[in-house]
Amino acid sequence: MARKIIGIFGAGRVTETDNDWMAAFSMGRLLAQRGFVVLTGGLGGAMEAASRGAREAGGVTLGILPGTRNTTPANKYVDIAVYTGMGEARNVINVKSCDAAIAIGGEYGTLSEIALALKGQCPVILLDSWHIAPHNTVKQPDWQLASSPEEAVSLAIAAAEAESGA
Amino acid sequence: MARKIIGIFGAGRVTETDNDWMAAFSMGRLLAQRGFVVLTGGLGGAMEAASRGAREAGGVTLGILPGTRNTTPANKYVDIAVYTGMGEARNVINVKSCDAAIAIGGEYGTLSEIALALKGQCPVILLDSWHIAPHNTVKQPDWQLASSPEEAVSLAIAAAEAESGA
Amino acid sequence: MARKIIGIFGAGRVTETDNDWMAAFSMGRLLAQRGFVVLTGGLGGAMEAASRGAREAGGVTLGILPGTRNTTPANKYVDIAVYTGMGEARNVINVKSCDAAIAIGGEYGTLSEIALALKGQCPVILLDSWHIAPHNTVKQPDWQLASSPEEAVSLAIAAAEAESGA
Amino acid sequence: MARKIIGIFGAGRVTETDNDWMAAFSMGRLLAQRGFVVLTGGLGGAMEAASRGAREAGGVTLGILPGTRNTTPANKYVDIAVYTGMGEARNVINVKSCDAAIAIGGEYGTLSEIALALKGQCPVILLDSWHIAPHNTVKQPDWQLASSPEEAVSLAIAAAEAESGA
Repeated sequence: MARKIIGIFGAGRVTETDNDWMAAFSMGRLLAQRGFVVLTGGLGGAMEAASRGAREAGGVTLGILPGTRNTTPANKYVDIAVYTGMGEARNVINVKSCDAAIAIGGEYGTLSEIALALKGQCPVILLDSWHIAPHNTVKQPDWQLASSPEEAVSLAIAAAEAESGA
Repeated sequence: MARKIIGIFGAGRVTETDNDWMAAFSMGRLLAQRGFVVLTGGLGGAMEAASRGAREAGGVTLGILPGTRNTTPANKYVDIAVYTGMGEARNVINVKSCDAAIAIGGEYGTLSEIALALKGQCPVILLDSWHIAPHNTVKQPDWQLASSPEEAVSLAIAAAEAESGA
Repeated sequence: MARKIIGIFGAGRVTETDNDWMAAFSMGRLLAQRGFVVLTGGLGGAMEAASRGAREAGGVTLGILPGTRNTTPANKYVDIAVYTGMGEARNVINVKSCDAAIAIGGEYGTLSEIALALKGQCPVILLDSWHIAPHNTVKQPDWQLASSPEEAVSLAIAAAEAESGA
Repeated sequence: MARKIIGIFGAGRVTETDNDWMAAFSMGRLLAQRGFVVLTGGLGGAMEAASRGAREAGGVTLGILPGTRNTTPANKYVDIAVYTGMGEARNVINVKSCDAAIAIGGEYGTLSEIALALKGQCPVILLDSWHIAPHNTVKQPDWQLASSPEEAVSLAIAAAEAESGA
C-alpha cells in the first residue's frame, strides 16, 4: 500500500513574518507527526514552510514542481522532487495525488487547486483562504472551513481516513 | 498571424431551458460575427451552446477536449477538435490559448478555469458566475463583471484587442 | 462533425535547403488540397514548412505549441495556435488529435511523437525518419514506410479515412 | 537536498517468467541498496518488478501513474504514488524527475520514454531494449547500451552522479 498523502496548498510569496507561513509550518509538522507524507508544490513561501515543518518532525515531504530541476528547483526541505515541466498543469497532479488537502491563504494558483480538488473529489479544507460561492445555488458546499491549523489538520486527517475506508 | 481566439467557459450540465445555455449561445454567435475563433472545452451544455451559436453564425469553433475521440468525442458544433487525454489539465490549455475569456455560470471546472486565467494573465469576464474573494485583501480584482451577454462580449473583445496591442 | 486532421511531425532545426524542409512543405500543400487540416507542433523548421505549404494552398493550419504566446509564439503560417505551456507533453496532444500522422526525418522529439502515436493507435507513416526495432520480436510493425512525400500523403489519407470508417 | 532518483522503464505486460521481469527486479534491488529512490510508471510488469526489488531491499519507491487512484491504482510495492490523470503525458514527468534512467525491453510506451529522456537530457541506459537510429546521421548516440542488469545499474549511477556534479 502506498503511504497516505495530505497536501498543503498556499502562496509562494508568503514570508516567515506572515501568519500563513507559521500556519503552514505547524500543519506540516503535525501531519508528519501523524505519519502522513506532506505534498506541496515544492517551491517557496507556504510550500517551503509546510515542507520544513514536516521535515523537522522527521516526516517525508513530496514536492510536485511546475518546471524542471534547472529552471525551478525544489526548496531544500523537499525529499522527493517530482518535476513536471508542465507549469500550472501540475496543480491537477497535486490534487489527484492527495488523500485530502488544506488550502492556507493563497493567490490564484491556490484558488485553482481548491477548484480542481472540488472537481476531482479530493476533500479540501480552507484555512483563512479564498471565499467562493457559486451564482444562484442553495446546495451545501463540498468544502470545509477551519479556524486554526490544528482544526485544519484534524479535518484533513478525518477526510483522508474516510476517503480510503479506514 | 494566428487568428484571435476568445474562450467561453461554462458547465457541461446546462440545458437548453437554462438562462446560461442561451447566454452561451448568444455570446458564441456575437463573437463569431466579430471574426473571433470561439474556444470551449468541446463537450456539452454551455460548451455546446457557445459552439453552436458560433457555427450558426459562420464562425470557426475550437474545442479542447479532456479525453480522447473514443472516450469523450467533441460535440457536433466543434470544427477543430484537439484531444488531450489529460483530464482537467486541459483547462490550463484553454486559458493559455485564449486572447480573452468569458465564464458563464459554471461549476468547479469553470472555477478552475477562472483561477487559471487569472494566474496566467488571460483577461477574464464573469457573467452570472462564481463569486470569489481572497482572504484579507484590499487590492483591486483582476477580473471584470458583466451583467449581460452583450456586455460580456464587448468587454472580452476590448481585452483581447488590448492584449495584443491592437 | 469536426474536420479531419493529419499531423506532420519533424525537426525544428531543418532549414529551407534541407530535403526534409521541401518534403514537409509539399506534404502540407497536398494535404490542404485534399481538404485536411494540417497539424504541427507550431514552431520552426519542418513544422513551419508544413504549415506554409498548407496555408499557401488555402488550407487550415493548427499548431500545438509547447510554451506560451510570450515564450514560444507560433510560426506565422499557423492559423489556430493552441498554447499548452506543457513542454514536450504537448507531443501527446499532437498524436491524440490527428486522424493520421507523417513523421519526416526528425530528432528526439519526433521519435517521441512516433512512439506516442504507435502507443495511442494513431496511424503513423515514416518518411526518411527514425529506424526503430523492438528487441527480440517477430511481430509485424504497426507503422508504414513511405519513399516519397506523395506516397506518405496517400498512405496517411488512406489511414485517416479507414480510422473513421469513411 | 532532494534524494537522488533513478528510473526504470519497461513494459507493463512482462510476467515473472520473462527475463525482463527478473532484470527489473534485480536493478530495483541494486539501486535501493545504493540509496537511490526507484521511480517507475507505477503499474504492473517491469514497473512492479523494479518496485518490488527496491522495496524488498528496504528502498523507497516512487510511482508516477497515468490515471487516478480509482481507475489505475499503483502496484502494492509503490510507497509514494503520484497520480497524474494525464495518460501518456506522465511519461514526460518520469524522465524529468530522474537523475538517470534505465530502459529494460519495453513496448511503445518505453520507446516514448527513451525518446523523451534523450530530448530532455536525462541520461538513459538501454538494456535489451529498442534499437533506434536516426536517418542519415553520423553523430555519436546520446544513449548507452548495457549488457547486464549490473552494468546498467553501474552506468546509471555514474550518469546520475555526473549529472549533479557529485
